[in-house]
Amino acid sequence: MRTSIATVCLSGTLAEKLRAAADAGFDGVEIFEQDLVVSPHSAEQIRQRAQDLGLTLDLFQPFRDFEGVEEEQFLNNLRRLEAKFQLMNRLGIEMILLCSNVGTATINDDDLFVEQLRRAGDLAAQYNVKIAYEALAWGKFVNDFEHAHAIVEKVNHEAVGTCLDTFHILSRGWATDAVENIAAEKIFFVQLADAPKLSMDILSWSRHHRVFPGEGDFDLVKFMVHLAKSGYDGPISLEIFNDSFRKADVGRTAIDGLRSLRWLEDQTLNALSVEERPSALQLQALPEVAEPDGVDFLEISTGRLGETIRVLHQLGFRLGGHHCSKQEYQVWTQGDVRIVVCDRGPTGAPTTIAAMGFDTPDPEAAHARAELLRARTVDRPHIAGEVDLKGVYAPDGVELFFSASSSDGFPEWLVEFGVEKQEKPDIPSLITAIDHVNLAQPWQHFDEAVLFYTALMALETVREDEFPSPIGLVRNQVMRSPNDAVRLLLSVAPENGEQGDFLNAAYPEHIALATDDIVTVAARARKRGLNFLPVPDNYFDDLQARFDLSPEFLETLKENNLLYDRDEHGEFLHFYTRTLGTLFFEVVERRDGFAGWGETNAPVRLAAQYREVRDLERGIPS
Amino acid sequence: MRTSIATVCLSGTLAEKLRAAADAGFDGVEIFEQDLVVSPHSAEQIRQRAQDLGLTLDLFQPFRDFEGVEEEQFLNNLRRLEAKFQLMNRLGIEMILLCSNVGTATINDDDLFVEQLRRAGDLAAQYNVKIAYEALAWGKFVNDFEHAHAIVEKVNHEAVGTCLDTFHILSRGWATDAVENIAAEKIFFVQLADAPKLSMDILSWSRHHRVFPGEGDFDLVKFMVHLAKSGYDGPISLEIFNDSFRKADVGRTAIDGLRSLRWLEDQTLNALSVEERPSALQLQALPEVAEPDGVDFLEISTGRLGETIRVLHQLGFRLGGHHCSKQEYQVWTQGDVRIVVCDRGPTGAPTTIAAMGFDTPDPEAAHARAELLRARTVDRPHIAGEVDLKGVYAPDGVELFFSASSSDGFPEWLVEFGVEKQEKPDIPSLITAIDHVNLAQPWQHFDEAVLFYTALMALETVREDEFPSPIGLVRNQVMRSPNDAVRLLLSVAPENGEQGDFLNAAYPEHIALATDDIVTVAARARKRGLNFLPVPDNYFDDLQARFDLSPEFLETLKENNLLYDRDEHGEFLHFYTRTLGTLFFEVVERRDGFAGWGETNAPVRLAAQYREVRDLERGIPS
Repeated sequence: MRTSIATVCLSGTLAEKLRAAADAGFDGVEIFEQDLVVSPHSAEQIRQRAQDLGLTLDLFQPFRDFEGVEEEQFLNNLRRLEAKFQLMNRLGIEMILLCSNVGTATINDDDLFVEQLRRAGDLAAQYNVKIAYEALAWGKFVNDFEHAHAIVEKVNHEAVGTCLDTFHILSRGWATDAVENIAAEKIFFVQLADAPKLSMDILSWSRHHRVFPGEGDFDLVKFMVHLAKSGYDGPISLEIFNDSFRKADVGRTAIDGLRSLRWLEDQTLNALSVEERPSALQLQALPEVAEPDGVDFLEISTGRLGETIRVLHQLGFRLGGHHCSKQEYQVWTQGDVRIVVCDRGPTGAPTTIAAMGFDTPDPEAAHARAELLRARTVDRPHIAGEVDLKGVYAPDGVELFFSASSSDGFPEWLVEFGVEKQEKPDIPSLITAIDHVNLAQPWQHFDEAVLFYTALMALETVREDEFPSPIGLVRNQVMRSPNDAVRLLLSVAPENGEQGDFLNAAYPEHIALATDDIVTVAARARKRGLNFLPVPDNYFDDLQARFDLSPEFLETLKENNLLYDRDEHGEFLHFYTRTLGTLFFEVVERRDGFAGWGETNAPVRLAAQYREVRDLERGIPS
Repeated sequence: MRTSIATVCLSGTLAEKLRAAADAGFDGVEIFEQDLVVSPHSAEQIRQRAQDLGLTLDLFQPFRDFEGVEEEQFLNNLRRLEAKFQLMNRLGIEMILLCSNVGTATINDDDLFVEQLRRAGDLAAQYNVKIAYEALAWGKFVNDFEHAHAIVEKVNHEAVGTCLDTFHILSRGWATDAVENIAAEKIFFVQLADAPKLSMDILSWSRHHRVFPGEGDFDLVKFMVHLAKSGYDGPISLEIFNDSFRKADVGRTAIDGLRSLRWLEDQTLNALSVEERPSALQLQALPEVAEPDGVDFLEISTGRLGETIRVLHQLGFRLGGHHCSKQEYQVWTQGDVRIVVCDRGPTGAPTTIAAMGFDTPDPEAAHARAELLRARTVDRPHIAGEVDLKGVYAPDGVELFFSASSSDGFPEWLVEFGVEKQEKPDIPSLITAIDHVNLAQPWQHFDEAVLFYTALMALETVREDEFPSPIGLVRNQVMRSPNDAVRLLLSVAPENGEQGDFLNAAYPEHIALATDDIVTVAARARKRGLNFLPVPDNYFDDLQARFDLSPEFLETLKENNLLYDRDEHGEFLHFYTRTLGTLFFEVVERRDGFAGWGETNAPVRLAAQYREVRDLERGIPS
């Protein structure tokens, strides 16, 4: 599949955009006119630069407000168009995008549109260029791709064809089935965009909130299946107007975009029947991905070893051992839960989540797939005889390892820590699993992270929440493997609050441990001196008003600093530890299939953490 | 007028919110329940704290999903409500906000709503509290304040009244005339919110985009006029859900809010006829504000004096003289345009706009008004005999001075710089006026700035634009005095881009100077060696395609680095200087009443400035 990207998706100068598109691995780009207008480089220089970078220049865009006007204005529009044809000849671009008239059309007459586009086609032919006519979703008289294509068919000119743009089609809710009936040679160009479902005016939605395929709610796979069946063989190009992309690092955005196309290509291939697969698009498959079976280990890194292992012990973990060759690593275990601790020395560096290992049916394939999806491989030294875990960096810098699933619950690498199989305790441990991991995402990598975990790990987005903290709204995306073995919460802290110094500490990441007996876990932790995050009395008053709990049960909650929630399935009890740097632990007990993760109580936690950080900054002992 | 604010408008802990509301000068607050739930302070402590701060606790809110349910669920709702009444008694709050049912109502029957609210009223009476029933704009069966009030009238219970919330009324476009017909004793509470006109779902609009009165598009004055006529005498309270306020500095937000109420109070009084003015609301007037007659002076501050005065000279300014007592100040003049330069010594500090003096018909009144609107007074030292300019700090820290209008164009303070009246040149100067001043606003103070200039200077918002730069979208609000003597452009740079180091330098502020002969100004500047901001050739190619200019005219533009625009009125020619630190100059010529300010060409400028800064950072000479 030939990949392309519109320069408007990317930040920086035109030269920077071309470089980033080439580095990411795109085959070509669309030149967004404004990017050229503000560039100090001439058309000839841009043409040469693209050639040097191995990029084709696939489209010049957009040309607006052309058809449906009186003859005098039309002649002026034709003059404008001719100037662009001349520019395209200088650039060496063969195709221009002509959008259905939004602003100046006064005559709603298909025959006139046909006539005017045909005259445009005649002019295009003189310059050896072609016109791809696109229905904008908010076009004045033409806003539907089928209507636009009907006009193109009537024009019946070899220089005039259709441009399909998924945003303009899917934002209006048009069915895409008709795409496969369009004659392939009449589809001149295809632009892809995804978008979250938002109820706002289409223009604002389009200009600010488009995202790359796989990051929104549109069914692009279905569209691609119809397109493949049509016989189209041109470039598949991204055209994304997104406020975040405009200001984010250009190289990262380009890689994110290429990843979205590779993923979509693979999804499309899988959605086609075997007979349908050989298509003009020449879709390439990725190595198959299987959902993870569970969490092999979590690794935390700390410059405050003492307080970190104290909390692990308070929560019931036991030291498994130290790594044979890398002395800074130790492992703490409790049943099948394994937490590797990397001791960064007494540097005071905060405790953070450094790596996650997920049990993966075929680690080699998963890693190969990740690399094809442009994830950067983690290069950890290992000596002969040690397990060589394959891993890649997630968008937030956390290392993601593809562990081999161990049927007996004893992963091979544990041996390197001196842990022997028989050392596993006979009595069942109170902590039974990792319930979920909460990772804080920088706002500019949030959409990228959703696609990353979807494309690399076959996780799926479950729900999005938003809740208040004392310094702004926190957005939260829950992702999980369909088998529920792995659950991730991706949180985005408020952008750039004035109280910025609090941000990292007030929005810590966390590891939630599952138990079937939280009261006993809490009692043990209390006995061992754990610093619970305090829960205010007002919270319990409100809980009582909401749920009409028995006085005894309420007392149990209060005594153990437990928070509570209930849904149509069951109950949820949980407590939080105080924060170690930017990381804390949560212990959760789900009763009868409670499906949430404690979002109702998150504001209580965030307020307590905010007070903790603020008091620390003011030198008030907690 | 009694002022109040809901704690949900403010960031921080409940204790911090109370402190900020009291410091700003509010009479009372509404306790937003969630703020109490997450607070470590008991109801009794909060009650005491408010009393110590001199704040009344006016409302407890919200209580949701009460009426329109089956009896069993209703009894549970009544139990929930009773728990809140008990809490209100502890807090010493007499009024609770009960919102029309959004989630759980299943029975659409006004008689049932009446019966259930009456039973709630009976319970409220037992606790000596009252219920203010409010129609949410997205209420399931009740979403209109007139409907809600009709229900309240049928309930006919002294503990049950109506709460009016302007967001819920005006977002639906309901007329507010009926407000004055509601019996005053049945209006239990009034909440105000303004909002920009947005076409999105009402719930998202309400939860994220409300602003303080005067910062949005709602006609709140009209609402207040009807309310005043109704005879209502309770608090006027702000209830603003705004993503920015949630993360901004709590003290500033509270002051911004109080300012909005004081301004609205004054506007309401002015909108009432003299006979109507004595109202139960006891509205207080502010000193009258008159629009400014012009720009008296602009003051720039610099640690790079040499390059600053070089540019001033290149643009045709002459040194007027140095200040008699403050040696770091000098004034540069050209006709009636006066630019004061504050030399901060060879510190390398960037050149910035430090102050603006606007010709004001009554400076004393303007300053008194500003102080009542909680602006902070600038305290500049002056010695006997010197003009004592009154000024206040604008939200972005720029000092705003109220200058006495000088009928002869020669302000008194110029004498302190040794400038004598007769020194004014006989030949008319090429630069005729300050066309506009462009101030960069931190995103979190943008709405505040709009209200500030509206309330203090009687400026009005004209238009809002948004345009792309290489590192994100820039938002721009044009404000001007109705007589067009003063024009301000408030720009907001993209929030927190990854390329943050570029931000200040790449979004500089600027001073636009007006001329009737830009070609001569440009020629003189070129002769004197001005560094023009370069305009790319591609721009001129596109200009030609758009406007079909004569080759001679296009050549004139190119030669002089002039940008061009045209609207239905006339033409606009302008050039930019290179940036001094974070400030640059623009010279503009308006022909035949061109009404814009060059927004079409702003992306060209921003791209050139971006390249300049980037190259500087990379050590490439410009």
